[in-house]
Amino acid sequence: MSLRQSAVHSKTSNIKSIEYSQTLIRQPSITPDDMGCQDWLSQKLTNLGFTCHRFNANGVSNLIAQMGEGDTTLAFAGHTDVVPPGPMNKWRVNPFSASIIDGELIGRGAADMKTGLAAMLAATERHIQSGNPINQRFMWLVTSDEEGEAEDGSKLIASWLADNNINLDYCIVGEPTAQSQTGDVIKVGRRGAISAKLSVQGIQGHVAYPQYADNAIHKMGHIISRLNQIEWDPGSEDFPGTGLQITHINSGQFTDNIVPAHCEAHFNIRYSHNYSQQSLSKLIERTISSVTRDFKLEWDRPCEPYFTANREQNCLIHAAEKAIFKNLGKFPRLSTSGGTSDGRFFSSPTTQVVELGVPNYSIHQVNERSHIADIVTLEDIYTDLLTNLLSI
Amino acid sequence: MSLRQSAVHSKTSNIKSIEYSQTLIRQPSITPDDMGCQDWLSQKLTNLGFTCHRFNANGVSNLIAQMGEGDTTLAFAGHTDVVPPGPMNKWRVNPFSASIIDGELIGRGAADMKTGLAAMLAATERHIQSGNPINQRFMWLVTSDEEGEAEDGSKLIASWLADNNINLDYCIVGEPTAQSQTGDVIKVGRRGAISAKLSVQGIQGHVAYPQYADNAIHKMGHIISRLNQIEWDPGSEDFPGTGLQITHINSGQFTDNIVPAHCEAHFNIRYSHNYSQQSLSKLIERTISSVTRDFKLEWDRPCEPYFTANREQNCLIHAAEKAIFKNLGKFPRLSTSGGTSDGRFFSSPTTQVVELGVPNYSIHQVNERSHIADIVTLEDIYTDLLTNLLSI
Repeated sequence: MSLRQSAVHSKTSNIKSIEYSQTLIRQPSITPDDMGCQDWLSQKLTNLGFTCHRFNANGVSNLIAQMGEGDTTLAFAGHTDVVPPGPMNKWRVNPFSASIIDGELIGRGAADMKTGLAAMLAATERHIQSGNPINQRFMWLVTSDEEGEAEDGSKLIASWLADNNINLDYCIVGEPTAQSQTGDVIKVGRRGAISAKLSVQGIQGHVAYPQYADNAIHKMGHIISRLNQIEWDPGSEDFPGTGLQITHINSGQFTDNIVPAHCEAHFNIRYSHNYSQQSLSKLIERTISSVTRDFKLEWDRPCEPYFTANREQNCLIHAAEKAIFKNLGKFPRLSTSGGTSDGRFFSSPTTQVVELGVPNYSIHQVNERSHIADIVTLEDIYTDLLTNLLSI
Repeated sequence: MSLRQSAVHSKTSNIKSIEYSQTLIRQPSITPDDMGCQDWLSQKLTNLGFTCHRFNANGVSNLIAQMGEGDTTLAFAGHTDVVPPGPMNKWRVNPFSASIIDGELIGRGAADMKTGLAAMLAATERHIQSGNPINQRFMWLVTSDEEGEAEDGSKLIASWLADNNINLDYCIVGEPTAQSQTGDVIKVGRRGAISAKLSVQGIQGHVAYPQYADNAIHKMGHIISRLNQIEWDPGSEDFPGTGLQITHINSGQFTDNIVPAHCEAHFNIRYSHNYSQQSLSKLIERTISSVTRDFKLEWDRPCEPYFTANREQNCLIHAAEKAIFKNLGKFPRLSTSGGTSDGRFFSSPTTQVVELGVPNYSIHQVNERSHIADIVTLEDIYTDLLTNLLSI
């Protein structure tokens, strides 16, 4: 525990990342409502010298802030929206009171990811106010649509960057990635996800005369078996592979003596960067076609995977590892596990993305929380990252 | 076409089986309501010298009539109930008016099976009134619960016969069995039927972490494949084999990112006399158990199969073939196809059952109908059967 961390318990109000976390948590900004969080952030960033561009799309608030110039561009990326609090009576405290109990900050967004934004802001202030030079372009990319459909948030911010010929070299996403302590795990990629609805058509008939019918459920059963026989890349704990899960099946209304003519199933695929939407849809269609041609497949909610590899030079992963080692005395585990994140919208062959945040054990649950020490550590790590990447 | 048949078109009202068909069809006796049909039948049979025993069970009317004594017992069996008429506006005439149009008697029950009962009654009258001796026991067994659950009809009549130590040697059921002409097809058995509800349990989880979940739909798909791989007796067109049809499948409410913990399927088995309920349930449970132990199977609506084989002596099939050949100049096709019938309640190693009636192409449909000639032929065939079986 650092000197700063040992001071935390007696005097948290002096720690900027805690104060800022509380300010943000006290706005009940449930997706896609920003509830003024970005007004407050813009004011803070403007005061620090940033130029802010803001735009709304279908009720979603987006903020793009930038300062400095240089050969490279570094961005902090995050979201101000949170998931709904769920059953209020199960919370120990009001989820929007941002109470601190026994060294933990409790509230909706306390891990995902208002503490991340607060630590980014505190680090940005410390970097600028300590007089460190900003020799590169430094950006902030914030949306209020990460927990929702994500159609009007980071996706549009990425389009704006492209339209303005801005290529991000380094993008640090403030998502909660740690397991038990800030810095123990960082994400260097995420699996992709895609859903589909499969409708299979048969021929209705009487159960006593199946020779005149074509049972849609029997065909669907056959298809499910074939889909389960696909050999996907197995992955490992940190770099999970690909898998398909049937999430729903229904043949509609039924009569005990009727062979059903229709059956519908939904499935979801989580896939590594070894696949693309196109390669997946080819594989799935070929598999289903081996059973029947009477099917309809509708793909939905595609999220492409991303993966940032280690590099020989100018490596964001190395920079993150170095900053973490300085604060923790150990290196982080690199992982691509878990659901999707907005990192996918910024990642490209020329953009390295790393997600680095507080522990994620309580996200989306009642009594979402983070240890004060973990928030402070995050502020310290971010500050070191800015020093390493902006002042060179 | 016989002389009697050629007279039909000009003067149908003189033909008893037509008159009696109309009397019965004009009572809207939808299962289980008899609507006075059995009152009328009892009166007719009593007038002919029968002793009638009647009893009701759960709204179902049952009639047992008998006359004569001898070494053997012959029974006519049938039902007075009909299925609902369905959409009234699609009928050419009121389904309970028993109208005759272009040589066809139209109405609910005109094939299934008020014309069968009417032909039986006309044949019984002709046999008795022509002075033919009745040297055997002759019974009538009539219920108003054949089209329903069949729990309170012929099943209870069969119990009454057992309680009274009466063994049927020959049972002629008046169900519509013909294809295009009365006598072209008779049934010498029926397949059994049984339904079941199968519930499969898994473990709910997030689609991104399938290693912690157990997808109930995947297991059900596997089970469906295994059930479809069972090698049943194939049968033929006239003696259909055994088969299983999944009639419904549903995994309930769903969320796109949740691995479902529960899936339910219904199936129906139609089975030949090579199987019994017990052998089937063993086979199915063994098949499902090869995939999972987390299942629940509830059997429902069992109908045992029956089959009457040809015999060297005292063969009911031969008697029916002989009567049909006399009237048609050709022998019938023997079949066990189609759904279940009340024949199953009377069939036993010591009871031969044959179903013989008018064509069945319009049963349970709108504009249910029979050609006048087919009803008259049935009356003639039944009359010859009585002569052959009662007067020996």
